[in-house]
Amino acid sequence: MSTRFSTDAVLAQFEKIELVQQQRARLQDTQITLSHGSGGKATHNLIQALFADAFANPLLDQLDDGAVFDVNGARLAFTTDSYVVNPIFFAGGDIGELAVNGTVNDLAMCGATPLFLSAGFILEEGFSMDDLARIVRSMARAAERAGVKIVTGDTKVVHRNKADKIFINTAGVGVITRDVSLSASNARAGDKIILSGSIGDHGVTILAARGELELEGDFSSDTAPLNDLVETMLNVTTEIRCLKDPTRGGVATSLNEIAKAAGVTMAIDERAIPVRAEVRGACEILGIDPLYIANEGKLLAVVPSNCADEIVNAMRAHPLGRDARVIGQVWAEPKGLVFLQTQIGGNRVVDMLVGDPLPRIC
Amino acid sequence: MSTRFSTDAVLAQFEKIELVQQQRARLQDTQITLSHGSGGKATHNLIQALFADAFANPLLDQLDDGAVFDVNGARLAFTTDSYVVNPIFFAGGDIGELAVNGTVNDLAMCGATPLFLSAGFILEEGFSMDDLARIVRSMARAAERAGVKIVTGDTKVVHRNKADKIFINTAGVGVITRDVSLSASNARAGDKIILSGSIGDHGVTILAARGELELEGDFSSDTAPLNDLVETMLNVTTEIRCLKDPTRGGVATSLNEIAKAAGVTMAIDERAIPVRAEVRGACEILGIDPLYIANEGKLLAVVPSNCADEIVNAMRAHPLGRDARVIGQVWAEPKGLVFLQTQIGGNRVVDMLVGDPLPRIC
Repeated sequence: MSTRFSTDAVLAQFEKIELVQQQRARLQDTQITLSHGSGGKATHNLIQALFADAFANPLLDQLDDGAVFDVNGARLAFTTDSYVVNPIFFAGGDIGELAVNGTVNDLAMCGATPLFLSAGFILEEGFSMDDLARIVRSMARAAERAGVKIVTGDTKVVHRNKADKIFINTAGVGVITRDVSLSASNARAGDKIILSGSIGDHGVTILAARGELELEGDFSSDTAPLNDLVETMLNVTTEIRCLKDPTRGGVATSLNEIAKAAGVTMAIDERAIPVRAEVRGACEILGIDPLYIANEGKLLAVVPSNCADEIVNAMRAHPLGRDARVIGQVWAEPKGLVFLQTQIGGNRVVDMLVGDPLPRIC
Repeated sequence: MSTRFSTDAVLAQFEKIELVQQQRARLQDTQITLSHGSGGKATHNLIQALFADAFANPLLDQLDDGAVFDVNGARLAFTTDSYVVNPIFFAGGDIGELAVNGTVNDLAMCGATPLFLSAGFILEEGFSMDDLARIVRSMARAAERAGVKIVTGDTKVVHRNKADKIFINTAGVGVITRDVSLSASNARAGDKIILSGSIGDHGVTILAARGELELEGDFSSDTAPLNDLVETMLNVTTEIRCLKDPTRGGVATSLNEIAKAAGVTMAIDERAIPVRAEVRGACEILGIDPLYIANEGKLLAVVPSNCADEIVNAMRAHPLGRDARVIGQVWAEPKGLVFLQTQIGGNRVVDMLVGDPLPRIC
């Protein structure tokens, strides 16, 4: 695939992007905007300019999906996410299932076996007790499916119109028992990029549930716990370089994160990326590239070239990896960019998500 | 102190309370009310009727301030809290400092050395970037003071009027290196009850900051990390039965939790409980008993009688325990109640907080 890209075009784009990157560390906004929660560029600016500086420590600096550390000989992973999805119930799931699966997946992306979750609820006065009960039962089912226990929690209530129904934070602790080192910074030239299945399903489902689409279609969130799929992959080889679940900001943003962390180019082939017909149709109507849409049950893996086929085959034997495939490869240069070979044979730089076309997607 | 209570009066009250307790497990509300976030009786009903049932597991069932479990030979504590305090800045602290100290303290109450925190932010669109930066710096300072690292995080943004400025969730992981077993269920007859200092300071400070008090006074939140004080106490003896930081619901609610978990009576002497004059004055004007007001830098300890004096002496040598004292003792019967010997010599049953006179206190 690499030979299809024109080096000149690549470098021209590269210089332009470099300038943009130099401007990234500065935080010029005086107020929080929706794009600061997009998971895309504004979120990264905020993290870099504010959090990374104030909380500076080697674990946080990795900026992976979770922190990995040793405690008395046990190698642990620790991660957190808050869920503010609107609406709270949608085809294929709800905010509770999302909150469990999302944190399970962040632990899995660290190569950890998820063990224990916390659950922090912020409830709006007047929220339906029946809806809360339904969400709590959904969390319990999701926890059972993923093999984790919800062991500690907290409930706060705020006045009407000071929150929106329910926000849930989950944090998770997992244990890493294998000799793995999964980090975005590990990607290296020659590696293959694997995607576990079709993209865009979760984000489009949420938009459809909001009534923002006039489309009728078979939309359903892909929310699922990926820890068993990761287990299957690590059973093939512990040489996997990195895993990422492309949630907010989508595949495009996750690939950019890897490219920047490792100082490589992530070169992908648009034709290799599965997008369901209904999702593609919805994206065309919305004018949003499915590469930027959140997924909640998919993963990207960067793997050594010689293991790629075996890993893909193992994934395809798993219910959550049936559509797994190699979608591209890693180049040494230029550093920090994502290149897409388009459907029509052209190629372009794919940046992180800018702005937030899809607020409160998770 | 025990001889001052009339047994007949105790039993008459006991029968009335028993009936109330039988009604507790049912959840009759159809909507969430502010009292479900009070930390008092409605919160306990919600936890028992909804969360404990759905998430049933031996760790959660303990209902202590955090969950304690072993992972590959390491004994860990894990806890979470969301912070929705209003206003976000107040005398003596802010929401960020509170979010760090609160989770540090929950870990300390498990006898754990706090190690790592997560930080999950839910921000309202339009929130001031300067205020966010100030809060983040405050969290960094608090983390440094407590000796913990903030290693993983998440940021979500919701539209204007869908949140109130900023909500912060922190979860924490700590390690238990001593041979301790701290649990509310461990309290037993004959034990002494220790309080580390004056009560009501945090709650009254928040009310004053809201302008709900016409009083002028020297109010300041007591928010502080208690892990070093706990370390000092455990250096005296690891025989301490249980530790609790009386936050939402105050000392009265924490003592009720211990009484119910251990099936004992917590008998306390009102005259032994330090309340600063300004705080007492504010409470009288508000008509709120300081026993129900949230503290953010105080702890209750139940300890074997023969260690009490030595523990108190060690606490008094620590800046955060200068006013430590024995405030009562544990009786075998009647089970599950808190009795107060009042200032004027009478005695009464002290129930958990009912309703929520002080919403969004933390």
